[in-house]
Amino acid sequence: MKKSLVALALMGAFSSAAFAQSSVTIYGTLDAGINKTTHTANSSVQEGKRDNNKLGFRGVEDLGSGLKALFQLEIRFEPDTGTNESGSRPLFQGQSRVGLQGSFGTVRLGRGLTSLQETTTAYEPWSGQPNVAGFQTDIMVGGYRSAQTGSGSDPLGAAGNSGNRFANGLWYNSPVYNGFQLNLNMASKENNGLTTAIVGRGTAAAPQYPIGSLASAYPYSVSATFSEPGASVPRYSVYAAAERNALEVKLWSVGAYFRPIPDLKLMANYSKQDLEHITAINDTINTWMVGANYNVGPGKILFGYGQKDPDGSLKWKQLSVGYEYNLSARTYLYLDLSQKKLPLTTTATFTTKQNHYALGVHHNF
Amino acid sequence: MKKSLVALALMGAFSSAAFAQSSVTIYGTLDAGINKTTHTANSSVQEGKRDNNKLGFRGVEDLGSGLKALFQLEIRFEPDTGTNESGSRPLFQGQSRVGLQGSFGTVRLGRGLTSLQETTTAYEPWSGQPNVAGFQTDIMVGGYRSAQTGSGSDPLGAAGNSGNRFANGLWYNSPVYNGFQLNLNMASKENNGLTTAIVGRGTAAAPQYPIGSLASAYPYSVSATFSEPGASVPRYSVYAAAERNALEVKLWSVGAYFRPIPDLKLMANYSKQDLEHITAINDTINTWMVGANYNVGPGKILFGYGQKDPDGSLKWKQLSVGYEYNLSARTYLYLDLSQKKLPLTTTATFTTKQNHYALGVHHNF
Amino acid sequence: MKKSLVALALMGAFSSAAFAQSSVTIYGTLDAGINKTTHTANSSVQEGKRDNNKLGFRGVEDLGSGLKALFQLEIRFEPDTGTNESGSRPLFQGQSRVGLQGSFGTVRLGRGLTSLQETTTAYEPWSGQPNVAGFQTDIMVGGYRSAQTGSGSDPLGAAGNSGNRFANGLWYNSPVYNGFQLNLNMASKENNGLTTAIVGRGTAAAPQYPIGSLASAYPYSVSATFSEPGASVPRYSVYAAAERNALEVKLWSVGAYFRPIPDLKLMANYSKQDLEHITAINDTINTWMVGANYNVGPGKILFGYGQKDPDGSLKWKQLSVGYEYNLSARTYLYLDLSQKKLPLTTTATFTTKQNHYALGVHHNF
Repeated sequence: MKKSLVALALMGAFSSAAFAQSSVTIYGTLDAGINKTTHTANSSVQEGKRDNNKLGFRGVEDLGSGLKALFQLEIRFEPDTGTNESGSRPLFQGQSRVGLQGSFGTVRLGRGLTSLQETTTAYEPWSGQPNVAGFQTDIMVGGYRSAQTGSGSDPLGAAGNSGNRFANGLWYNSPVYNGFQLNLNMASKENNGLTTAIVGRGTAAAPQYPIGSLASAYPYSVSATFSEPGASVPRYSVYAAAERNALEVKLWSVGAYFRPIPDLKLMANYSKQDLEHITAINDTINTWMVGANYNVGPGKILFGYGQKDPDGSLKWKQLSVGYEYNLSARTYLYLDLSQKKLPLTTTATFTTKQNHYALGVHHNF
Repeated sequence: MKKSLVALALMGAFSSAAFAQSSVTIYGTLDAGINKTTHTANSSVQEGKRDNNKLGFRGVEDLGSGLKALFQLEIRFEPDTGTNESGSRPLFQGQSRVGLQGSFGTVRLGRGLTSLQETTTAYEPWSGQPNVAGFQTDIMVGGYRSAQTGSGSDPLGAAGNSGNRFANGLWYNSPVYNGFQLNLNMASKENNGLTTAIVGRGTAAAPQYPIGSLASAYPYSVSATFSEPGASVPRYSVYAAAERNALEVKLWSVGAYFRPIPDLKLMANYSKQDLEHITAINDTINTWMVGANYNVGPGKILFGYGQKDPDGSLKWKQLSVGYEYNLSARTYLYLDLSQKKLPLTTTATFTTKQNHYALGVHHNF
Repeated sequence: MKKSLVALALMGAFSSAAFAQSSVTIYGTLDAGINKTTHTANSSVQEGKRDNNKLGFRGVEDLGSGLKALFQLEIRFEPDTGTNESGSRPLFQGQSRVGLQGSFGTVRLGRGLTSLQETTTAYEPWSGQPNVAGFQTDIMVGGYRSAQTGSGSDPLGAAGNSGNRFANGLWYNSPVYNGFQLNLNMASKENNGLTTAIVGRGTAAAPQYPIGSLASAYPYSVSATFSEPGASVPRYSVYAAAERNALEVKLWSVGAYFRPIPDLKLMANYSKQDLEHITAINDTINTWMVGANYNVGPGKILFGYGQKDPDGSLKWKQLSVGYEYNLSARTYLYLDLSQKKLPLTTTATFTTKQNHYALGVHHNF
């Protein structure tokens, strides 16, 4: 009797114990390798990653009548130093979202990839992995992240915080109907700790977005996909997507993939970024990319070629090949070779050939 | 043979593997919603939380003879941005404690809620959730956290670190005896990284607590509760609690709840904060609060009214109503409406009506 | 049909769900107690730790043919404040490594203890725990970490980041062959965020390692061990190890243990640190240590005596005794008493007796 009362007395301390243990799934990725990129600040041989490294926790609760509650929390980190991603990103940089799913679709709140960014990864030969050989970061979404003004989906976050996510976001994913799906996403106007003013069309003395600015319009991101109806591995799929960030920088993207035979996936897309709201001249960036994945025995060959054409500036060109050797469904070794022709500075009048080599291991758990 | 020796050789790297996997329970809360609070620095519509968001790990080891070892580690985070709580709080802001439990009660070491703060949450209509509609933060514990000097239970911590916890704490919870339980808590005098001197009764040139100061007396927190003996859901309960923080700010609090019918819980409490040790004049803050929880079908209505009366300053008044709609035992939707009359600055000569609206989803796992 | 397509549509959001849940093991240590160390900046009674506090995640995947993939991620934290270790260390300070294991041995990439540091812990009476009573930190590895210039295995990391680990490391552990094992470890030349120049043999104006410096040679760490062949608890074991950090500070260490009877383990080692690359004079530190562990009933007695002799400076002497009382295979109480004779400042002309007392609880999960 006494003992059970002790337990009860500790309910304050262990209040969550009142709920039965639900099935939390722990998952993650560790990807580490050796790489070298010429013509960079540090062109020595480095240890680094090819994919995001993550440790995640997620769960689904059946609420009955087809309704489900779901949550997902995803830590991102650097495998070579053990720090948070980039040393500075939020603990749950991957995502922190909670929501409900039913016959109406899925609604989620929190922080995560925008609908455009979440959709496009399926149409990129490196699956949207943020590495030098892949096309997602520099080419595929209009060089969105490297445009110095208005960089990224979430430009009003703390330094190093930005990226292809919305903080304070709301997501809606429709059910798939005859192969068609709609994804809507918007965010509040909140400023999440911007510490440097964004000059934009203003002046250093009167910047367009001073420190503490709210978004000047509600950020949103939408995408629509149409894939071979009813197929678990669709033979074809197309998407169209649009996004507007907190600085009213806009991004459009369209693309498709096609599998002429089951082992070959061909991909192509085109994107356009419109910086007019914060830039007086040269306000457009066009990009395109073609790519392929080809399964050969226990391996996969990756190939891509793309260009980025910023208005009034030199064109970027990127050619990449990669190889993945599957040790299992969860683990593979990889090799990437990539060459980029780019201006090394924003004022450079010529392009430089930057070579990139990477060799490593990718392990999902 | 060789293979098992390889395994042995790796014991250094995997040293904890020597112990069988114990039953670690993963638990947590994700709570996100849309809210708006008028007359604040940012009164636009925001995404935020109502409850603490947490991801925790805990376990109990049976040591035999009625003795148990227990630990609990609780990450706190912001769901809308994915950062540590407030962006700056310790990783395990929720708690990091280890201890022993037996017929003598429970002893724990580490960081966690003070005995006073841990006890009072059961006597507050929003269960001590730190939201604008709730009473714990501003009203219930004497406005303890918003008193600019001597703020919070742990005032010698790093900026943004403080709150209703003791770092370097020792906790004792007695067994429950005929409905009566005693909770004792103290902390060492350590300074945990205070970076700004606390002027107190000193001057800017000679502050009462310079940077690096130790506590001038051992901080402690005690509470006693008496609840209907033997009942798993007591019909009545009363508490009395007292606390002294590292700056010798003192807090007393008494309260009770009563269930006239099982679906109705009535609550009331009174607290007094004594800032004499660090303030020459107007050193007392009195607060009181009444509240109710009423279960209606799958929902719960929350109600509260309270006042805070700081010596020589304008009175705060708060009225809140809330509704929780249970989708399951673990998940509910909520709606809060609250109005606070308060002086917007410490020198304001009139009070302003601040309205707060919140709508969201609360999911335990 | 519709519902399963909704699930499919969410694959982008839940992409890792495509893999079956693998067996992730959660493990950790919570160690908290009360301690006091005289003649320090804060010699009051403190709450602190004796061992590292950790929360870890690890897993092994069987790839067939004797090949395995393995990963390990280990959070380190302070139990008394809930922060990351030391408040400033990387999230996965313990380690973040991924690798492959087979008949060839084990290869791992990431961040973790150097081979020297990983090996030596088995030859130290406090098992390499980083507490004041133990010998690992100050004595056993040549006072490696307290040498102000070139401190630690990873001196080019961010402030507070350093320690006995390599970031950007590669590890190889050979299989055990007739009791013999070889451990090789090296790191890239990368700088991981050093924010203060290291003067070394340069001047304040022209430091030997300016901010942003790469390592001037590849850091490496090697160790070889020979233990009683085929024994799960070897009666004897010897090691030899050498390390060179990013500043070309070198460390040699040799040691052995011997169990004359199963309950008694005798240990000894000798280490030499060579700071010549960054110091013009007094560039050598010699240390030695003898120790014992003796099991008595449910308890264990720990004993050690050691000296550190830095060239041209006063000798350090340390005598420690400890007692561990096992409540179970996972939980024990401990008591440490230690006396160190050391110069309190680098220019002190006499040594001071510094006493240390600690009492606490150590819980593995």
